[in-house]
Amino acid sequence: MGKTIAEKIFEAHAVDRPTPDTWVLRLDAVFCHEITTPVAINDLVARGKDRVFDPAKIKAVIDHVTPAKDGKTAAQGKILRQWARRHGIKDFFDIGRNGVCHALFPEKGFVRPGYTVIMGDSHTCTHGAFGAFAAGVGTTDLEVGILKGVCAFRAPATLKLNIHGSLPAGVYAKDVILSIIGRIGVNGATNKVIQFEGPAVTAMTMEERMTLCNMAIEAGATCGICPPDRTTVGYLWPFIQDEFESPEAALAEYTRFAPDPDAVYDQVIDHDISELAPQVTFGYKPDNVKPVTEMAGTPIDQVYIGSCTNGRIDDLRVAAKVLEGKQIDPNVRGIVSPATPDIFKQALAEGIIATFMAAGFCVTNPTCGACLGMSNGVLADGEVCAATTNRNFNGRMGKGGMVHLMSPATAAASAIAGAIAQSPLFKTTEGSN
Amino acid sequence: MGKTIAEKIFEAHAVDRPTPDTWVLRLDAVFCHEITTPVAINDLVARGKDRVFDPAKIKAVIDHVTPAKDGKTAAQGKILRQWARRHGIKDFFDIGRNGVCHALFPEKGFVRPGYTVIMGDSHTCTHGAFGAFAAGVGTTDLEVGILKGVCAFRAPATLKLNIHGSLPAGVYAKDVILSIIGRIGVNGATNKVIQFEGPAVTAMTMEERMTLCNMAIEAGATCGICPPDRTTVGYLWPFIQDEFESPEAALAEYTRFAPDPDAVYDQVIDHDISELAPQVTFGYKPDNVKPVTEMAGTPIDQVYIGSCTNGRIDDLRVAAKVLEGKQIDPNVRGIVSPATPDIFKQALAEGIIATFMAAGFCVTNPTCGACLGMSNGVLADGEVCAATTNRNFNGRMGKGGMVHLMSPATAAASAIAGAIAQSPLFKTTEGSN
Repeated sequence: MGKTIAEKIFEAHAVDRPTPDTWVLRLDAVFCHEITTPVAINDLVARGKDRVFDPAKIKAVIDHVTPAKDGKTAAQGKILRQWARRHGIKDFFDIGRNGVCHALFPEKGFVRPGYTVIMGDSHTCTHGAFGAFAAGVGTTDLEVGILKGVCAFRAPATLKLNIHGSLPAGVYAKDVILSIIGRIGVNGATNKVIQFEGPAVTAMTMEERMTLCNMAIEAGATCGICPPDRTTVGYLWPFIQDEFESPEAALAEYTRFAPDPDAVYDQVIDHDISELAPQVTFGYKPDNVKPVTEMAGTPIDQVYIGSCTNGRIDDLRVAAKVLEGKQIDPNVRGIVSPATPDIFKQALAEGIIATFMAAGFCVTNPTCGACLGMSNGVLADGEVCAATTNRNFNGRMGKGGMVHLMSPATAAASAIAGAIAQSPLFKTTEGSN
Repeated sequence: MGKTIAEKIFEAHAVDRPTPDTWVLRLDAVFCHEITTPVAINDLVARGKDRVFDPAKIKAVIDHVTPAKDGKTAAQGKILRQWARRHGIKDFFDIGRNGVCHALFPEKGFVRPGYTVIMGDSHTCTHGAFGAFAAGVGTTDLEVGILKGVCAFRAPATLKLNIHGSLPAGVYAKDVILSIIGRIGVNGATNKVIQFEGPAVTAMTMEERMTLCNMAIEAGATCGICPPDRTTVGYLWPFIQDEFESPEAALAEYTRFAPDPDAVYDQVIDHDISELAPQVTFGYKPDNVKPVTEMAGTPIDQVYIGSCTNGRIDDLRVAAKVLEGKQIDPNVRGIVSPATPDIFKQALAEGIIATFMAAGFCVTNPTCGACLGMSNGVLADGEVCAATTNRNFNGRMGKGGMVHLMSPATAAASAIAGAIAQSPLFKTTEGSN
């Protein structure tokens, strides 16, 4: 019987199967940030188990509140910093070198096809874009992962999402994933792996696939995952060129994890994007999704462009294209957070930072902060934010605040309009929905 | 009998003298930020006195914690924002246009020689660089100022600080003011106005004079003040060219406030800087000052370049000159906060932002945050920061943290060394102290 990607990864990493449904997997990487990991560190220390399974397989970053906003977050950073130093964790990214984990770690080449990755962060599913099984876990699993390099998972039921058609101009991966979540619902993939494939996925860049996989959790999925292909190898090549004789050799190795043609799926959904229009959320659940036209004119107080969903260079480029030569509405606060220092530097070199500032945006250092209402852009009660982030839960960006999720193009257009607005990069055609 | 600058300003603005020692002055400007003003606004509203004396004379900015770090600071920003809108306060600087008040307001031309200015902020004395009487006040005075445009002050006893000599290469206005505070002590000018003059002040740029006046409060002074001169007029000319026929005419008007030769001073101090070396603080009081050489090698965890003292373009230029082509110590977190969007843009255009990032610095948006331990760089317990800020009080940048005040050149050199270090721009000569 054929196997899905997740099943192949599970088989290649199984170290135990205490029940038929429970797989204990060897981990290729444990990712850490300063909000959830210090809890695990403190507990391990208290239990006399201040050890790490392999310092080279642990990657850590201060990204959620950085630079620290108060004594508490300064202490959290200090715990992670001292832990990294004492265990020789070389891939520790402190202030100045730090950025949003799910953008920074792929950029550093830390994820490979077939990898198993855990992190105390729900958007760890982002890394599935590389054909890895990457899942967010709680403190107990994180502690076991740090200590033993293993993690237990249930056997992965897979929802195959065949994405057909090609992206219309002015429509982005963010619109695709919003349309999918709007269709299948916030519980549409609960406890499943979403295997994103089809011509539209094949055509996507790694950055677009990361946006897609990033929001798999918003449909309840344990992980989103894309089959590794030439695009994957092309992205990773600078990091793997010493391991393989040629990109073809890397591709041959990585496609061991490609799904078998006769793999068995829990569910298969075909999703056509050829007539997709820009999407936006309207309520407090990520499946409250509508075309932008139906929400156009909704007043906003703040626009936030950034996060692990849409803070990458392509996202900034698209937003800058919309903003070029324009001023944002004087009643809107525009905030952009390039997701990593390298993205910031690239945007600097391309004049994108200057474009954002000329348009009236505040450019922050790389940080997750505003997305989860922890720093650098928290909403006041009653305020509305157009955001390129991943969660519109009630109070997510600040108690009493409302978040509308959208693409960077839509967010930039909305900043100019002072209200939710269609991006000029999207040309409406008859039949768009 | 001749008069000091402060006495001339008091006479020109007096509306009442309830006692011989008490002057009620008409205010030319009331400056506001989002930490102290909302307290006054809420109180005025509660008392049914939600009015402002003159919306054109009130300037407001969100600068201390920006973008907001939590619900409380978001609410503070919202109160200030809504107040500015409801009273037609046009010079309100929100996220994207905002920066550190004492850098932003001079940059916008809001301060003129002879002005009276109040703000609910202790470093309001910065604006005395323009030959204005500018003082930090508490909530009650701020409320009266907002409502009536007046404020009561005691008759100004003046300490005249004659600064002789010229600045040695690699020594800056920050070193001068540190050496002065080290000499006269934190109570050396309590309840007095410090009138900074002499050849060294005449030779200073407005930016340097702002650094000088900024820290007058650290010696207890109500205000620091520099006589208006051609440099003052040159800085202000873009803002006043419609008011005067020529810079000479402006100078003639402004020098009405110059001190009379026979003015009577409470105290006169002569201070020679011709052999001054870079200075640094060593304790929890701004008068705990030593030459850098005596503190060299003291380990540091963080370097902060920014604030109303030293976050201006010249400060960034000097630091960038030291950092050019270098990497900061991997165990040091470098943070730079250009003080205003215009400074940020200028630094962008000159490649200074790129230099800071290449050296390993985190570049934040313009904010006061870290200087007073409120956001964007708060220290953890036991951490040490080399900072270009103005206060080294115990816990100022975070509970249990230690702050060493210094110039941007010294801070940049310290970032590279990972410990307090002499700037390479300073060439030691025999007799330096």
